[in-house]
Amino acid sequence: MQFPQDSVGVVTPAKYDHTQPFALVSGKELPEFSLVYETYGELNPARDNAVLVCHALSGSHHAAGYHQELDAKPGWWDNLIGPGKPIDTNRFFVVCPNNLGGCHGSSGPLSNNPATGNPWAADFPLVTVTDWVRSQRLLRQHLGIERWCVVVGPSLGGMQALQWSIEYPDEVELAVVIAAAPRLSAQNIAFNEIARRAITSDPDYHQGHYQHRNTKPRLGLMLARMLGHVTYLSDSLMHQKFGREKKQQSGQFSYDPEFMVETYLHYQADKFAGFFDANTYLLMTRALDYYDPAAAFDNDLADCMASARCRFLVVSFSSDWRFSPAQSEELVTAMLKSKREVSYACIDSDKGHDSFLLPHGEYHRMVRGFLQFHSERLWNTRIA
Amino acid sequence: MQFPQDSVGVVTPAKYDHTQPFALVSGKELPEFSLVYETYGELNPARDNAVLVCHALSGSHHAAGYHQELDAKPGWWDNLIGPGKPIDTNRFFVVCPNNLGGCHGSSGPLSNNPATGNPWAADFPLVTVTDWVRSQRLLRQHLGIERWCVVVGPSLGGMQALQWSIEYPDEVELAVVIAAAPRLSAQNIAFNEIARRAITSDPDYHQGHYQHRNTKPRLGLMLARMLGHVTYLSDSLMHQKFGREKKQQSGQFSYDPEFMVETYLHYQADKFAGFFDANTYLLMTRALDYYDPAAAFDNDLADCMASARCRFLVVSFSSDWRFSPAQSEELVTAMLKSKREVSYACIDSDKGHDSFLLPHGEYHRMVRGFLQFHSERLWNTRIA
Repeated sequence: MQFPQDSVGVVTPAKYDHTQPFALVSGKELPEFSLVYETYGELNPARDNAVLVCHALSGSHHAAGYHQELDAKPGWWDNLIGPGKPIDTNRFFVVCPNNLGGCHGSSGPLSNNPATGNPWAADFPLVTVTDWVRSQRLLRQHLGIERWCVVVGPSLGGMQALQWSIEYPDEVELAVVIAAAPRLSAQNIAFNEIARRAITSDPDYHQGHYQHRNTKPRLGLMLARMLGHVTYLSDSLMHQKFGREKKQQSGQFSYDPEFMVETYLHYQADKFAGFFDANTYLLMTRALDYYDPAAAFDNDLADCMASARCRFLVVSFSSDWRFSPAQSEELVTAMLKSKREVSYACIDSDKGHDSFLLPHGEYHRMVRGFLQFHSERLWNTRIA
Repeated sequence: MQFPQDSVGVVTPAKYDHTQPFALVSGKELPEFSLVYETYGELNPARDNAVLVCHALSGSHHAAGYHQELDAKPGWWDNLIGPGKPIDTNRFFVVCPNNLGGCHGSSGPLSNNPATGNPWAADFPLVTVTDWVRSQRLLRQHLGIERWCVVVGPSLGGMQALQWSIEYPDEVELAVVIAAAPRLSAQNIAFNEIARRAITSDPDYHQGHYQHRNTKPRLGLMLARMLGHVTYLSDSLMHQKFGREKKQQSGQFSYDPEFMVETYLHYQADKFAGFFDANTYLLMTRALDYYDPAAAFDNDLADCMASARCRFLVVSFSSDWRFSPAQSEELVTAMLKSKREVSYACIDSDKGHDSFLLPHGEYHRMVRGFLQFHSERLWNTRIA
């Protein structure tokens, strides 16, 4: 198979094993952990072109390219990452790990607890955005990189980029925070809670210890995903995509899926439940709920941002109601108040929260321009 | 106990027994049915002051007053119905039935199937908005009323008011359609489908035949209600009410309810699951999905409205995103296009869909003014 010229092509995940204990924000400790990750592009001799890509709830380390030539789909951010693309692998060395607690190869509920030799399952401790940043920092050191040229992420990934800028201000040059929020709203927490309750109400959940019973809370995870899916789309997009269309030969007057939107949600949820782990879903949503860096600053977000040193690009999408432009704007306002350097764009899109996954021209131009301009400025300073 | 002067006081539900077969839109037939209903005020000698109040998904026939002197709460629309209130019982004779398929005393899944002597449960046939209107028409005849002075309802109740105006144009003088829509959007159908799937995924659902097993799909119904509840509130109201506040002595780093919004949702859902029937929830949401009077007019809503003869008041609420102002405005536009007489107000409220339950001044003034002005005009014509 011939890949397009702007594809990173076939990629092979790598693994970083941290063999020391790792203290978590909760007070618990992991005896050791592994992060699976992918890289695209080359680290330059000055080692100052590294980009950390942080993934969202259902993402993984597989952000670009293909694992095998016959893969039907590339990584989740393939339209943004590659040679000549906005995150240009001719220019940058891109690193994308699977988050701690994830279900795609990094230590998490599916991996073995070294103390027992069995999967951690529900005993895997809750981790926070800060824990992710600290584990990513160990990966950075392992890769021989002193600081990130860029930390970038959408949604939950944007929270990680933000936390990097606050916690390790000298280790990030540029932070790109896309479709994220400095803290979840009550409505957003409520949606997460309903999703979690759907999973834990499933009798196959077994307090999270479903694996060794050879089962999983599939119906609960499907419900969680259906709800997530609806909230990631906009009302207007759903209207365009489905309207009130029905399946052909729909049997009227029953509770079977009959409208196209019902069939679509079932299909998507079924697919998702096939590859995603329910314990990871719980853990990721709780990390979202808990993230609130301003809490330690008496809820003053401007005070909280005062420690940051990097340049920011903040991007929101007009029809995103799960992580609304207003939430991005609250962040930008706080950054300006604390005199941080920030560019902001609310991209006009009718695709809802999922816009961050899509190749919207203005959005991609914004990311490309910001990264190109400011990385060149940095590299020119270095050469000078 | 002394009731306020503007309360209808203690009310006693009545029952209408229809002992003939009743054909449903689905093609099925009920061998007989009963409607439980309440009335407030007096039918005047001319019998032209009757108001039909149609309830929403989780409502009932108990719209105003108290069943017993010690009741903690009055009926669901008590702030709107009573002596001197916007639906003024000094002026109007108000009738509010529990919908067919409901769970508050009318024939439905909880009542007995005469063919078996056991509760209908999931064998109670699906009913539609049109079926409700037709059963309400039989109740009207039973009460010796020739036509409704007013048909009024919120949400699903607004759809019934609309259907009355279309199907029986000579039997309605005034129709008040509040926080409703002429057809659900794809997003709205999707939320209904997730709620239904939560119920039917509960192992205590037993294909809807849970009663004779002495159980009910309580967790599924709770999930459905939590989701409903979040979508009936606005993001801004939830922010004001709960923000990111936590319970005192919250145990961090667990999936137990910790944020106030979580505790609140559990409390509300638990209460709801205590009195509402899951089969009725399924049936009511499906009736919502199916309602689409324009479908028979090649989706031309203006054509569909052309048969109506009554005067309309349409009310929406600015922060209602489950039945958005845009949906009310689509209806109003169609009414204007077909030259119907319609007054419309989008009430500025931050309380979301639930605004229809609340005593918002401008909203109540609008309903009061419309009913008073146009009923007097009608009655003056009669006297003249």
